Amino acid sequence: MKKQKPIVLISNDDGIESDGIKALWKEIKKFAEVYVVAPHTQQSAVGHSITISSPIRARKNLIDRDFYGYAVEGTPADSVKLAVRNLLKGKKIDLLISGINHGSNTAINTIYSGTVSAATEGTILGIPSIAMSLASFTYNDFSFAAKFSSKIAKHVLKNGLPKGTLLNVNIPPVPEKKIKGVLITRQGKSFWDDYYDSRLDPNNREYFWLTGKMAVMDETLEFDEIAVRNNYVSVTPIHYDLTDYEQLDILKSWNIKL
Amino acid sequence: MKKQKPIVLISNDDGIESDGIKALWKEIKKFAEVYVVAPHTQQSAVGHSITISSPIRARKNLIDRDFYGYAVEGTPADSVKLAVRNLLKGKKIDLLISGINHGSNTAINTIYSGTVSAATEGTILGIPSIAMSLASFTYNDFSFAAKFSSKIAKHVLKNGLPKGTLLNVNIPPVPEKKIKGVLITRQGKSFWDDYYDSRLDPNNREYFWLTGKMAVMDETLEFDEIAVRNNYVSVTPIHYDLTDYEQLDILKSWNIKL
Repeated sequence: MKKQKPIVLISNDDGIESDGIKALWKEIKKFAEVYVVAPHTQQSAVGHSITISSPIRARKNLIDRDFYGYAVEGTPADSVKLAVRNLLKGKKIDLLISGINHGSNTAINTIYSGTVSAATEGTILGIPSIAMSLASFTYNDFSFAAKFSSKIAKHVLKNGLPKGTLLNVNIPPVPEKKIKGVLITRQGKSFWDDYYDSRLDPNNREYFWLTGKMAVMDETLEFDEIAVRNNYVSVTPIHYDLTDYEQLDILKSWNIKL
Repeated sequence: MKKQKPIVLISNDDGIESDGIKALWKEIKKFAEVYVVAPHTQQSAVGHSITISSPIRARKNLIDRDFYGYAVEGTPADSVKLAVRNLLKGKKIDLLISGINHGSNTAINTIYSGTVSAATEGTILGIPSIAMSLASFTYNDFSFAAKFSSKIAKHVLKNGLPKGTLLNVNIPPVPEKKIKGVLITRQGKSFWDDYYDSRLDPNNREYFWLTGKMAVMDETLEFDEIAVRNNYVSVTPIHYDLTDYEQLDILKSWNIKL
């Protein structure tokens, strides 16, 4: 009996037309039955948004030659939810990969990330999920990131992931021969030292542009941000239980009354 | 020497015109110098979105009589960041309260919540922060929720919160005399058993509405969702370090190579 190919859903936050999604699809289709359902436009920094107050639409979108995906007029989490609940209903999806994002999703970026959000939504829906990012806005060569996606996808298909856990993977923006290895990391504490540039429009009304740079607060290779800066692939297990367990007893000692 | 009043920033995700923000402001101004900076419109389920690809604006908005807040054309996290980085620059903000949200932010809702997102952004910016929600879309009496906000605000002003920790507070939608007490809880595992209702528009094009109900997966009062359903005020300490520490060693044992 021929072994069935695994079913892999690909989504992202850069939009269905992005190079990262195409590079990922080309690698994953070598061993899997692939479906692509992704936002119709760029959705960076949308966090874990979901559309509840308005309807959403989806349309077929050519990815390459005779292969079509679905472009969803919504957020990354909308795309994954609509794929699983409706567009691919009845199919047993074995794995979700979100990406390959063009830009880093380490440290504080993890919580703003639409790429991570799509993988989180997959996890909530019971699908083992991976968020893949190439840690640069300018480096354009997705070839190693795609190859590594295929490798880690196979690890996850073999080992599974515990309910509620997903992987956040960041690839250094350098050629393959410069990459030093793979590190299992924790989310860094680096954050944005940002500010708003205040300007006046031609009608003398003020508007604000957000800008700034990453304040690197981490020092050792155990943190995602530092691992990637030192040319290691960073793999961080994350979850969406935000409870700060260490604080439970401290808060109880406050003895808050009605 | 007269003791200075604490400075409290209020934001939300229901928009600056909401009843919850007004009820909160009326209580907190009894003991604090209050600033209100909130989205100009309803922003529910935006998650931790931040606007980076377009500029944002802010305008003064009358809250009551001669008291003005700022309405921000952006998300809850945008509002808090713009308040701290620009509009209130130079002021030492002692506390941020996000709310009072009209609707529950327990269990899985925590990660979709704009209310929690505003408080998370405050925490990232180094401000002790509280997310306040009244756990019903229909119950309209914010009086107890506002009174309790004032009480827990004083606890936080007195005890502080550790760097990186915020409080997610949910108030049962019942009159004060029915409330049984205050419980320190963890984020529940309940999630949305949701689906998309597919419809055709007048031009025969398909569109999808998200709908569904909460699948209650928790059983004991140690979980936020169950505490609130049993008429306890739920106080959950949360953080934004998403690392799933229990999985670090397991992943290392996978021995992932380049």
